[in-house]
Amino acid sequence: MRSRFKPWAADLIDSHPEVVIPNPEEKKGKWQEVFGNKNPLHIEAGTGKGRFITGMAKANQDINYIGIELFDSVIVTALETVLEEENGIPNLRLLKVNAKKIAEYFEKGEVDRLYLNFSDPWPKTRHAKRRLTHESFLKLYQAVLPEKGEIHFKTDNRKLFEYSLTSISEYGMLLTDVSLDLHDNEPEWNIMTEYEEKFSKKGQPIYRLEAQF
Amino acid sequence: MRSRFKPWAADLIDSHPEVVIPNPEEKKGKWQEVFGNKNPLHIEAGTGKGRFITGMAKANQDINYIGIELFDSVIVTALETVLEEENGIPNLRLLKVNAKKIAEYFEKGEVDRLYLNFSDPWPKTRHAKRRLTHESFLKLYQAVLPEKGEIHFKTDNRKLFEYSLTSISEYGMLLTDVSLDLHDNEPEWNIMTEYEEKFSKKGQPIYRLEAQF
Repeated sequence: MRSRFKPWAADLIDSHPEVVIPNPEEKKGKWQEVFGNKNPLHIEAGTGKGRFITGMAKANQDINYIGIELFDSVIVTALETVLEEENGIPNLRLLKVNAKKIAEYFEKGEVDRLYLNFSDPWPKTRHAKRRLTHESFLKLYQAVLPEKGEIHFKTDNRKLFEYSLTSISEYGMLLTDVSLDLHDNEPEWNIMTEYEEKFSKKGQPIYRLEAQF
Repeated sequence: MRSRFKPWAADLIDSHPEVVIPNPEEKKGKWQEVFGNKNPLHIEAGTGKGRFITGMAKANQDINYIGIELFDSVIVTALETVLEEENGIPNLRLLKVNAKKIAEYFEKGEVDRLYLNFSDPWPKTRHAKRRLTHESFLKLYQAVLPEKGEIHFKTDNRKLFEYSLTSISEYGMLLTDVSLDLHDNEPEWNIMTEYEEKFSKKGQPIYRLEAQF
């Protein structure tokens, strides 16, 4: 999820280390200290502009959230959402890093749940390894989640969802919940992402799954 | 799949024991003798009017097929399709029995693949046990399939498909292929059922999966 170049973004990010944590590898194993409590930790790989993770954090204050996003130009929007709140969003932090490196930032079992929302479909077969539900990524998630840790995944992209169902199953994970049209009878706990609202308004089905290691 | 009452159906079925096999429990472990060869055996639970199984048998003459259907009024149409062919369909047999009892008719490993097509969705939660992808049925299929035996399942019913993905995964099976819109780029090997043509013409997506024990 790239946006136009925002030359001021890097400065704003650097001036808010209380939200966008610098050198997160130093916090590995210490995230409960960062949040000042022992609440569960849910992370989102590919947070984009942060509508999902900020919405989740505001709706579930007894859970800690971390959004991971590599690009300044989009993560800065998530940061701005936090700064618009009078007292910030105390149970949310952002990491401006590559999701591929999560095992450098979290210990095994330190993350209780991982969200993937509308990640890049990489439609060409030769790019399958870049899909965030490819087995090499599942292995990374497993390295930071506990036994029976969960992945929750949403997308509008049919072929990515088909691929993900088999990739997750072949990895040996259990599919515990599947919806092939999330907005037909939308659950009240659902928080829409930017993409989700856009595609859903066009009448496209949104696909969602929960899976367990 | 029920049709109007056809009083002549039972007579026609009884007069063709070479197609609709009477007392199939006597053939258990002996289906290669019935077909006179050692080709793989694929069965369909809930054959209905038989368009799928007759089409498959004609298209794949090196595979033996058995269609299982409880109701006279629909299985008779499958029988009529066989009788319309000048030399019948030598690699196809029909069983007028309840699919629940397949373990009485086949030995473990005697069936190489099982097809389920457009089976009754039984939408009410209290009827979940009647769905042909409920764990109690998966257990039955496992009893006649070999290790790593396959189930191929098609339906137009979204909720039945969602249920089946989790039921199959939770049973410990592997999803090896999933399509959420089979007729978008329809595979050339696909044989349509009566329902499939009807729903597909209406523009509804057809869902399909392959799973392995």
